[in-house]
Amino acid sequence: MIPNVIQADEGMWLFSNPPRAQLKQYNFEPTQQWLDHVRLSSVRFNSGGSGSFVSPDGLVMTNHHVGAGDLEKVSTPEKNYLRDGFQAKTRAEEIKCKGLELNVLIDIKDVTAEVEKAVPAGTAPAAAFKLRTSKIAELEKAAAVPDKQIRADVVTLYAGGQYHLYTFKKYEDIRIVFAPEKQAAFYGGDPDNFEYPRFDLDVCFFRVYENDQPIKCAHYLKWSAAGSKADELVFVSGHPGRTNRANTVDELKYLRDTGYPYLLNRLNRLEVMLQAWSGRSEQNAQRAEEELFSIQNSRKARIGGLAGLMDPALMGRKESEQARLKAFIGQWNAPEAQAAATAFDSVAKAEKVRTELIKEMTVLENAGGFSSASFGIARTLLRASEELPKSGGERLREFADARLPSLKFGLFSDEPIFEDLETLKLADGLQFLAVTLGPDSDLVKKVLGGKSPRERAYELISGTKVRNPETRKKIFADIEAAAKGGKAADLAALNDPMIELARLVDGPSRALRKRFENEVDEPKRQAHAALAKAKFAMDGDKVYPDATFTLRLAFGTVKGYKEDGKDVPAFTTFEGLYKRSAEQSNKGAFELPKRWVEKKNKLDLSTPYNFVCTADIIGGNSGSPVINRNAEVVGLIFDGNIQSLVLDFIFDQDTARAVSVDSRAIVEALRKVYDANDLADELTGKAK
Amino acid sequence: MIPNVIQADEGMWLFSNPPRAQLKQYNFEPTQQWLDHVRLSSVRFNSGGSGSFVSPDGLVMTNHHVGAGDLEKVSTPEKNYLRDGFQAKTRAEEIKCKGLELNVLIDIKDVTAEVEKAVPAGTAPAAAFKLRTSKIAELEKAAAVPDKQIRADVVTLYAGGQYHLYTFKKYEDIRIVFAPEKQAAFYGGDPDNFEYPRFDLDVCFFRVYENDQPIKCAHYLKWSAAGSKADELVFVSGHPGRTNRANTVDELKYLRDTGYPYLLNRLNRLEVMLQAWSGRSEQNAQRAEEELFSIQNSRKARIGGLAGLMDPALMGRKESEQARLKAFIGQWNAPEAQAAATAFDSVAKAEKVRTELIKEMTVLENAGGFSSASFGIARTLLRASEELPKSGGERLREFADARLPSLKFGLFSDEPIFEDLETLKLADGLQFLAVTLGPDSDLVKKVLGGKSPRERAYELISGTKVRNPETRKKIFADIEAAAKGGKAADLAALNDPMIELARLVDGPSRALRKRFENEVDEPKRQAHAALAKAKFAMDGDKVYPDATFTLRLAFGTVKGYKEDGKDVPAFTTFEGLYKRSAEQSNKGAFELPKRWVEKKNKLDLSTPYNFVCTADIIGGNSGSPVINRNAEVVGLIFDGNIQSLVLDFIFDQDTARAVSVDSRAIVEALRKVYDANDLADELTGKAK
Repeated sequence: MIPNVIQADEGMWLFSNPPRAQLKQYNFEPTQQWLDHVRLSSVRFNSGGSGSFVSPDGLVMTNHHVGAGDLEKVSTPEKNYLRDGFQAKTRAEEIKCKGLELNVLIDIKDVTAEVEKAVPAGTAPAAAFKLRTSKIAELEKAAAVPDKQIRADVVTLYAGGQYHLYTFKKYEDIRIVFAPEKQAAFYGGDPDNFEYPRFDLDVCFFRVYENDQPIKCAHYLKWSAAGSKADELVFVSGHPGRTNRANTVDELKYLRDTGYPYLLNRLNRLEVMLQAWSGRSEQNAQRAEEELFSIQNSRKARIGGLAGLMDPALMGRKESEQARLKAFIGQWNAPEAQAAATAFDSVAKAEKVRTELIKEMTVLENAGGFSSASFGIARTLLRASEELPKSGGERLREFADARLPSLKFGLFSDEPIFEDLETLKLADGLQFLAVTLGPDSDLVKKVLGGKSPRERAYELISGTKVRNPETRKKIFADIEAAAKGGKAADLAALNDPMIELARLVDGPSRALRKRFENEVDEPKRQAHAALAKAKFAMDGDKVYPDATFTLRLAFGTVKGYKEDGKDVPAFTTFEGLYKRSAEQSNKGAFELPKRWVEKKNKLDLSTPYNFVCTADIIGGNSGSPVINRNAEVVGLIFDGNIQSLVLDFIFDQDTARAVSVDSRAIVEALRKVYDANDLADELTGKAK
Repeated sequence: MIPNVIQADEGMWLFSNPPRAQLKQYNFEPTQQWLDHVRLSSVRFNSGGSGSFVSPDGLVMTNHHVGAGDLEKVSTPEKNYLRDGFQAKTRAEEIKCKGLELNVLIDIKDVTAEVEKAVPAGTAPAAAFKLRTSKIAELEKAAAVPDKQIRADVVTLYAGGQYHLYTFKKYEDIRIVFAPEKQAAFYGGDPDNFEYPRFDLDVCFFRVYENDQPIKCAHYLKWSAAGSKADELVFVSGHPGRTNRANTVDELKYLRDTGYPYLLNRLNRLEVMLQAWSGRSEQNAQRAEEELFSIQNSRKARIGGLAGLMDPALMGRKESEQARLKAFIGQWNAPEAQAAATAFDSVAKAEKVRTELIKEMTVLENAGGFSSASFGIARTLLRASEELPKSGGERLREFADARLPSLKFGLFSDEPIFEDLETLKLADGLQFLAVTLGPDSDLVKKVLGGKSPRERAYELISGTKVRNPETRKKIFADIEAAAKGGKAADLAALNDPMIELARLVDGPSRALRKRFENEVDEPKRQAHAALAKAKFAMDGDKVYPDATFTLRLAFGTVKGYKEDGKDVPAFTTFEGLYKRSAEQSNKGAFELPKRWVEKKNKLDLSTPYNFVCTADIIGGNSGSPVINRNAEVVGLIFDGNIQSLVLDFIFDQDTARAVSVDSRAIVEALRKVYDANDLADELTGKAK
């Protein structure tokens, strides 16, 4: 039986525990082979997104907006691939990305018992956290095989109810094959983002290389010849980033009353700043574009989420779910019942501490007060010098042995960092710091050193050497060498103003992080573990864990919805795209790319372009393939409608919809608009 | 002697106390006739801005951005005068504005003694406030002559140190004569706002009518044939809105630490919301344009102001000024010394209360939580029904007899109010209310009535009848009729949801306002009156009062400045405009209007276009004429550079500059770009 709190198409299910009961209602029983094939065809973009192998030659499909950061990094003042698109006519023309890592999940192992054994019952929170972190680092280290590009992460599921060891094959030589113009991919821009109907070709293709050769894929998704139709069962395999469905009402109220409003203030501020700066010149606009998009996207998502949290009906549903769980716990006859009974109160207490700490955490430990890539690098170097001499389990989590290769890969990336944008952001960050802590506080006075935020930012950004990748590599090598001798490298001798700034704020930052970990994260982790156990006892394994940016299987049907009493159909067509554009005389975000104007007559305008389905997705699912029962590609997730923004907290299948590019549109556009027949042939499996 | 705290070109001087000593250094002595002529040629736009008579036939010059709201109000879906400009070929084509009132200052009388006599020494703050308000209302009523369109306002100067009774001739039949395209007026858009060099034709012309005929002006400013040149002495006659130069350090710290950051959060939020909504369609963009501009403008101004407040050097100057005043008070042998000595502490105390109240004040009494024109109207009607039965002195200030005609004029305006934009803004406002007071607070629950902010906003906006001007007029007539019988009209019988919302929140709103007036405004007024007296004793009448959106005379020289070691010249030219545009391939804000592209060859490209001078201005001065010693127009103030944004708190003549359109550019553009020779002839006094 599916618990009655779960709706028919609800769930971001683990591949190790698929929704067999729900799928039975669709007369579909996934075989283990089907599940393995889909899992091994799925790809995680560590930059934040999903993708899939779609040819035997390592071709990976994802969203244009997932690849946007990579397109920007390889662009030059002369060639703006993000704006104008890119097309490799031959494999030799495929461009290597900077700092992009892809992961494929090759093994899942339940290590809950081992992790729990490491933390004896009754251990105090701070000690428990340390013991668990140490055990996790040990498990990850044992499973990772750096030489073979095997990465291992212990994934916390059910908010601490389970721990799974995920082993990934990782790829770091990723090349760009094809991207349309941003104006085609993100047609309608920020105005149409999270809206429906839509008309977007939000797709781009990469190819995975090893040893300078495209890899050969044993598993990849075949292209559906027919596409999908209304009411058809479809699946989404991807990496939903984070949901908060197991949140207690107190946690939701924290988000509603403190977390989201505070974050929105910050997003609004950054959006306005970058928007204004972008407006001053074309170069500015290009430099800020990707960050601005990401901020606008988050902003819209949070506004939708906050709207959901403000809806008394939604909060009412969450309150009754919680009442049901509390009632269960009240009559639960098990040793774990006691911990579960007090869990709600410890969450409430932790949320109070969180409210108290969040502003300082944001500016200091989360570096909102030092907003710049340069500060991030400087802090990583400083902390590496302090952490690496320690043993793995003693280190800050991100310096654990298993994570070091990825950390270094990011640290050594030679993606461009622009001094002007850095100064702008840091000046704003320093002002944010001063507003948060008070300009008269000792720490702010020390940070600013008698200067205005703008003057100080200019001094720091123009003075630091850490933006040079070679310098970074050299410093890190010195750090590693010193660490081997059990010592911290002497970074003070470098006299780098940004590293010294990182040092100046490191004490208070670490202290805050520690309090946060001990008084917020850890008590909540324990409380949620207890609640997760109660939920297991109540609902069995018919529940799915909150999203964790790990691979999940969602499903649903292709289906329109009603809005203000009107039917919104499931599919749009190319014809609709041209109509939307014709309606706007002052185009802006609704301008058609030149190629699309010229090739209009070649296109079959009745081709389905975008469609919606009821599958349960969230940010991170961007770029996920939509597949049919035969595991064939029928679409590509790229957005959710505005009604779906509540999915962060609660599933709703009345009006919440995932938005996809139709597979038929991808092939039609590749052939008719872009003359990319080779790529279309590769996708559809035609012999060359 | 000019006190050494005042810089050479500093000051927004009263026409009744001009800066004779400072002007002597320029070998200029303004005669009373000169002063009267300039004053009577100056016009206040009550919508927020300045202007001047520039022909004997009632022609008024101001900025395009001052007239923008009026252009928008008379635009239709077919005719977008704000975007495309407007040109009346004949007087019959001049379009009447909606709800615009112009004032000319015809008399100034010092009534300090009378106001002070009404408040016996030692009166408690609440009683003092009431006595003073009542006295002011009485003075205003006695001086106003509604039949003759004579309005009277008691103006509080020196933060309560002086009270002057200003008598204005007011005009309400104002017609639009000429406006350029917004793209020419606001060339460079938000990106170039508050920047220099600039290339803007930020001008528009109105004509003042009485009895359906253009008025005949005894006083108007003649056009200078030669324009200005570098280092020339110039004057600015206009209405600076508000400065905070008499603020104590505690007040500045309130603004730095609380006021500005809080306001900026709100401005950022509104900007992002309107920007996103405008992006969805052209109609949206047109509807929101004026409000969006005003928000972006405030945002940039506040960011600049906050940057100034965060500059330790600036705060240092303010601290030494304050120390000088404190030292003077310490040895001041006068009965007033005692009050002055405690003034700093009472200001500090008031600022603490302000910090405590500001958020609730903003959402309730200042209606930030009900952000919509509909709510404003509903509240005005509700309060009118309660206030009008009271005697003048007992009423809320805005319902005093002398202010009623203006209040009614605004209330009855038939400017369009758009239901979609109203719903958007109100939904955002209600969410802001919920975030501020907490969604679980009783008041918020009552306001939302179990609905989400969006649902509730839709219900309120679609349900209210107050957007219909005829309905408003009828309701107000009923209110006035009931008030004559000493009774409040029964608005509850109307069953209007918005009026009922206004009623629901009126108790807490009024209570907050009362606390704010008694515990913040009044103690500060008293403290500043005491400090102003001390300053008088210290510096004589060589000081000028903070800006109050009343007529002031500023002066300075046409002069460039240095930025990052580079010279920024005083003048730009038409040639520079075409160059700036050519540099941008992705035009946006830098697109030239079609006419300007076509007429380029006709223009003398060496014509000076914009220029900067050292005159001391602030928001509200927009549209002020810049005149030479002969009181001839040489320019038109429209902006300040980014360095000038500190002028709110402190004058600086090293780099802060007022930015003007050159009078020569106005005539050249009228003749060559717009073929508006009649208008150019009228300005330059050529016979027709």
